[in-house]
Amino acid sequence: MNAFADLLATQPSADRAAAAALAARAARVLRPTGALARLDELAVWLAGWQRTPRPHVERPVAVVFAADHGVAAASAVSAYPTSITAAMLRAFREGVSSINVMARHVGAEVVAVDVGVGRPTGDIRVEPAMNEARFAEAISAGRDAIASLQADVVVVGEMGIGNTTAAAAVCAALLGGEASNWVGRGTGVDDAGLARKCAAVDAARARIEAVRDPAEVLREVGGAELAAIAGAVLEARQRSLPVVLDGYVTAAAVLPLWCISPAALEHCTAGHCSAEPAHRIVLDKLGLTPLLDLGLRLGEGSGAMAAVPLLALACALVTDVPTFEEWLGAAR
Amino acid sequence: MNAFADLLATQPSADRAAAAALAARAARVLRPTGALARLDELAVWLAGWQRTPRPHVERPVAVVFAADHGVAAASAVSAYPTSITAAMLRAFREGVSSINVMARHVGAEVVAVDVGVGRPTGDIRVEPAMNEARFAEAISAGRDAIASLQADVVVVGEMGIGNTTAAAAVCAALLGGEASNWVGRGTGVDDAGLARKCAAVDAARARIEAVRDPAEVLREVGGAELAAIAGAVLEARQRSLPVVLDGYVTAAAVLPLWCISPAALEHCTAGHCSAEPAHRIVLDKLGLTPLLDLGLRLGEGSGAMAAVPLLALACALVTDVPTFEEWLGAAR
Repeated sequence: MNAFADLLATQPSADRAAAAALAARAARVLRPTGALARLDELAVWLAGWQRTPRPHVERPVAVVFAADHGVAAASAVSAYPTSITAAMLRAFREGVSSINVMARHVGAEVVAVDVGVGRPTGDIRVEPAMNEARFAEAISAGRDAIASLQADVVVVGEMGIGNTTAAAAVCAALLGGEASNWVGRGTGVDDAGLARKCAAVDAARARIEAVRDPAEVLREVGGAELAAIAGAVLEARQRSLPVVLDGYVTAAAVLPLWCISPAALEHCTAGHCSAEPAHRIVLDKLGLTPLLDLGLRLGEGSGAMAAVPLLALACALVTDVPTFEEWLGAAR
Repeated sequence: MNAFADLLATQPSADRAAAAALAARAARVLRPTGALARLDELAVWLAGWQRTPRPHVERPVAVVFAADHGVAAASAVSAYPTSITAAMLRAFREGVSSINVMARHVGAEVVAVDVGVGRPTGDIRVEPAMNEARFAEAISAGRDAIASLQADVVVVGEMGIGNTTAAAAVCAALLGGEASNWVGRGTGVDDAGLARKCAAVDAARARIEAVRDPAEVLREVGGAELAAIAGAVLEARQRSLPVVLDGYVTAAAVLPLWCISPAALEHCTAGHCSAEPAHRIVLDKLGLTPLLDLGLRLGEGSGAMAAVPLLALACALVTDVPTFEEWLGAAR
């Protein structure tokens, strides 16, 4: 019995009737049927999860989970010192970071959630990232963050110096293959840093070779913000709230859910594909096609937030464009 | 001496100092340098063409050129009757089309320009699309449309039943290769319609085999809205106004400019790559990387308009995020 089993056993499905009603309208509005392709698909997906034939993006909220990583403190796996995590958490709360500026433009709110800034997880090379209590705490923090929102779409992102190493360890442990396939330059490490990231992933994976439960993999070699993301995505599903996933770390955080139950991420879409080469591999595995592919590698929810206007447009393009009948009727 | 030579000889370049100032600021704001990749590049490009280190997307305007095509009236190259062009022009002006709905969401204006609705061009299979006077008129209409705008970014799009056949003829004549490489399903023709499109392109190309001037190719086998787009893009350049190109027809319309002067499109970016397979080929040729790739095939400027929020975000992400110094200074 894994840490996510209860929630995964009671997942609601999308509202097929709402999705079908939206799709039927999309086929009748004033343009060639199917001409908006992926945008129409997005609107159908939103209708299904918002459980309404009139989907909307009126209250998008970005939830950004931040935490520190023991592996970053113990081994130079990042181009930045671990103190940057706390600085960025402050920036989120003061409204001056990139995600805040994006949110203001998009009409979104940003909620920054501290799940372990200044309280680093264990060094995954030599010890579990989290003991069971800490893991449960992080999952709960993720669930609580979603439970307290007033939102119609949730962007899920993260901040944590060292967390692309944790993401790579989770992916390597769950999907196999060379560490180098899962490790990228993150915020910009040099070749020596890249080698240290690979070594950290190899050590972490070797340490948990016998672990089979995907949730345990996340606890052992992930991080507190990754566990919080998994909790947030599970809670969003319980509430039938559509989720836009951000980058590589976010994808790695939800990978264990998919490994346990491939339907677990049906309420999620991928906002973008980042510059981390492994992100595309994970998205392919998850069956998610990114909306944007602009080489971003910031995190903070930024790539997902950049896709939010597309979701808003997708809805309006079905709900606000008249059908031929409505148009002709209005002109009469 | 071609129809575009005078304007192409007096093209302004981007403001390098403004672009450099924006790029320098982008490197110092509160995030890892280069983390926003393509978004930073967009902001730099906008700074250069708007000639300011504080680029903005405050007055985006979509200019949609509409016209009818003799080849569509004479041969069933579209899934829709030619009367749809006039109906859609009316829809644009009544504010009920997809592009209008998108524009309202994005905070943009839509200007629909009639350059020959109900006044079809010649059937390109057997005669020139336009005589010299008509061609000059269409180019002027495109230039005038831009000259009368108050805009900081222009989206260029089109509407015209049959115009993907004209676009394919222009591309085939200028870039060579089989007609089938340049012809797609447009709004959704069946296999027989696709064969008629190929035959029309082959006939048009054979008719102008001896023509070498790219502008003459546009006059002979293009269409009035394509000529207007070329004029609009030339005029935008004179005014140093950045342009977001829409789909395949738009790309084909500006291809002659690029053939005459490869620098002619430096003030243009590609909003998206459409479902028309040839669009990607033309964009590659033009050296333009599309911002979006969502399988859209509507026209009307819709794919370009969908990218406008990215441009707005790109600007704000440099101008509105503080540098580390500004942030620390403000906190003091």
